[in-house]
Amino acid sequence: MALPITPALTTDSVIYDPAGRVLLIRRKNEPFKGAFALPGGFVDIGETVEAACRREVREEVGLEVGDLKLVGVYSDPRRDPRGHTVSVAYLTRLPRALAPTAGDDAEAAQWVADWRKLTLAFDHAQILDDAETLARRLAQD
Amino acid sequence: MALPITPALTTDSVIYDPAGRVLLIRRKNEPFKGAFALPGGFVDIGETVEAACRREVREEVGLEVGDLKLVGVYSDPRRDPRGHTVSVAYLTRLPRALAPTAGDDAEAAQWVADWRKLTLAFDHAQILDDAETLARRLAQD
Repeated sequence: MALPITPALTTDSVIYDPAGRVLLIRRKNEPFKGAFALPGGFVDIGETVEAACRREVREEVGLEVGDLKLVGVYSDPRRDPRGHTVSVAYLTRLPRALAPTAGDDAEAAQWVADWRKLTLAFDHAQILDDAETLARRLAQD
Repeated sequence: MALPITPALTTDSVIYDPAGRVLLIRRKNEPFKGAFALPGGFVDIGETVEAACRREVREEVGLEVGDLKLVGVYSDPRRDPRGHTVSVAYLTRLPRALAPTAGDDAEAAQWVADWRKLTLAFDHAQILDDAETLARRLAQD
């Protein structure tokens, strides 16, 4: 019973500090080289999507994240020029604005107050927009 | 830029009728042959996860579903004996308890009032539990 070939699975994380700033990287590699992006990457076989999310954050910005809230699943076949990728996006909060350390696929990493002024990779502007909606709902619960 | 090999992507749907019953199939094939399960299946390259969800419902129970609400993403590497599959689960409601037509991977399809009394395939009991939590929250919005 071999498994069929399906879209490649990725994960992205929207990390907020207590001031509501979001942690973005600048992409070191294509596609979208030089653009701002959420920390994230491909899910390995044998790890949960949540574990992949934590691993990618550790590798790209050197931070440990705790509780993950599901923002959405992004699967437009045109969202990634490399081929069909599907991203599972999570929201997480850090208790302090810890200094990130850019690694792996990240040329730089920084806390950003207004991501709407930036050029973002992939559909990350949509993910950030949806994360803000979720954050508002969670604040009301 | 070839894409890496990642877990296989699937989708499952929790379909409610106005009485709160859920539409389940009996699996025709292994794994979990004969067990009750949510309609669902693998996502094709080139289709969104939502489109895959609608297609699988059409193929397995012969019904068209409308608005899809994201229930969760299920990615435990042990959830499927065939290998690592990740399922994106959606909740949807039908305005009437339309009669299903079992097709494809389904030996039978029926509306079920109390799924907790049944043996369910995969982690579908967990998905149904999470869908009930989401349905309660949506009813309060």
